[in-house]
Amino acid sequence: MSQSRIPEKKVICVDMDEVIADALGEHIQRYNREFNEKVTPADLHGRWFWDFVPPERLSTLERYIRSEDFFASLSVMPDSQRVLERLQERYEIYIATAAMEVPTSFTAKFEWLKSHFPFIRPSHIVFCGDKGILRGDFLIDDNPRQLRRFHGEGILFSAPANAYVTGFRRVSNWLDVEKMFLG
Amino acid sequence: MSQSRIPEKKVICVDMDEVIADALGEHIQRYNREFNEKVTPADLHGRWFWDFVPPERLSTLERYIRSEDFFASLSVMPDSQRVLERLQERYEIYIATAAMEVPTSFTAKFEWLKSHFPFIRPSHIVFCGDKGILRGDFLIDDNPRQLRRFHGEGILFSAPANAYVTGFRRVSNWLDVEKMFLG
Repeated sequence: MSQSRIPEKKVICVDMDEVIADALGEHIQRYNREFNEKVTPADLHGRWFWDFVPPERLSTLERYIRSEDFFASLSVMPDSQRVLERLQERYEIYIATAAMEVPTSFTAKFEWLKSHFPFIRPSHIVFCGDKGILRGDFLIDDNPRQLRRFHGEGILFSAPANAYVTGFRRVSNWLDVEKMFLG
Repeated sequence: MSQSRIPEKKVICVDMDEVIADALGEHIQRYNREFNEKVTPADLHGRWFWDFVPPERLSTLERYIRSEDFFASLSVMPDSQRVLERLQERYEIYIATAAMEVPTSFTAKFEWLKSHFPFIRPSHIVFCGDKGILRGDFLIDDNPRQLRRFHGEGILFSAPANAYVTGFRRVSNWLDVEKMFLG
């Protein structure tokens, strides 16, 4: 293309589950209620919830995630709204979420974003199973597999499961993200 | 990242509507049936269907696209299955479709792809409103606006509406695509 482009903002892609939406919290809450357990995020240090739960209960987790109201119930991660809105002034922000494993979640995820992050335009929401397809300068994600696929710099957002993962710059929360990108 | 990557295949992103799925054909068919008209694709030379239809009928088009069975009804564009399956041997293929304007279409589009293009893995399906976010070498799309946003080379797939668009290499059908990429 010969047409000139407006000088572009750096692109930051932001994962949804465990980064702006507390899916794990909702999972644990439903699980504890159903099985009368007292699991806390600290119990999951270095393990995905799927690897922690006894095999015979895995179908229950599957049921949670497929239930109509699962995504609508998710809490927003602390400070993520305020910081993302600030970041948007200096960066181009895309929310990139892997919804392909639970195709019924598309609409629910989209509605959740619209309600909690109304300043993110629909055109800047991406559903993709493989974040290697994203053209971005940074990806903030809790999943090291996705960060490795990504071609820009992967920023690891701390979650219990990734406690032992190394090889990426790490942020523990949205205040860390704010400091990293807005000084 | 210091980790070494396997030498990568070139990435081709492929749009869905008007490129592999005949959405326009379905629109015209429903429209002709409802209004007892005889519109053909040739009547739309250089115009989007939305610009062709009298304003008072626009809500009807909107209704078609939001109807439960619209996407399930779409015909597959000739030769697209065979050629995409061949292309996949030499290129990394992603289907990239802008579903954000009709959020109810996510699941229907996903199901359509699964049924007609079972060789495309779910991880290689992308829903995005803005194809500027895709990291790919080529994008095959009928929409010049998306091709301009894209950072690789845009290939214009002929459709009645884009008859007068210039500035891109153009393919008229999937046999042209086959020739372009597989010589």
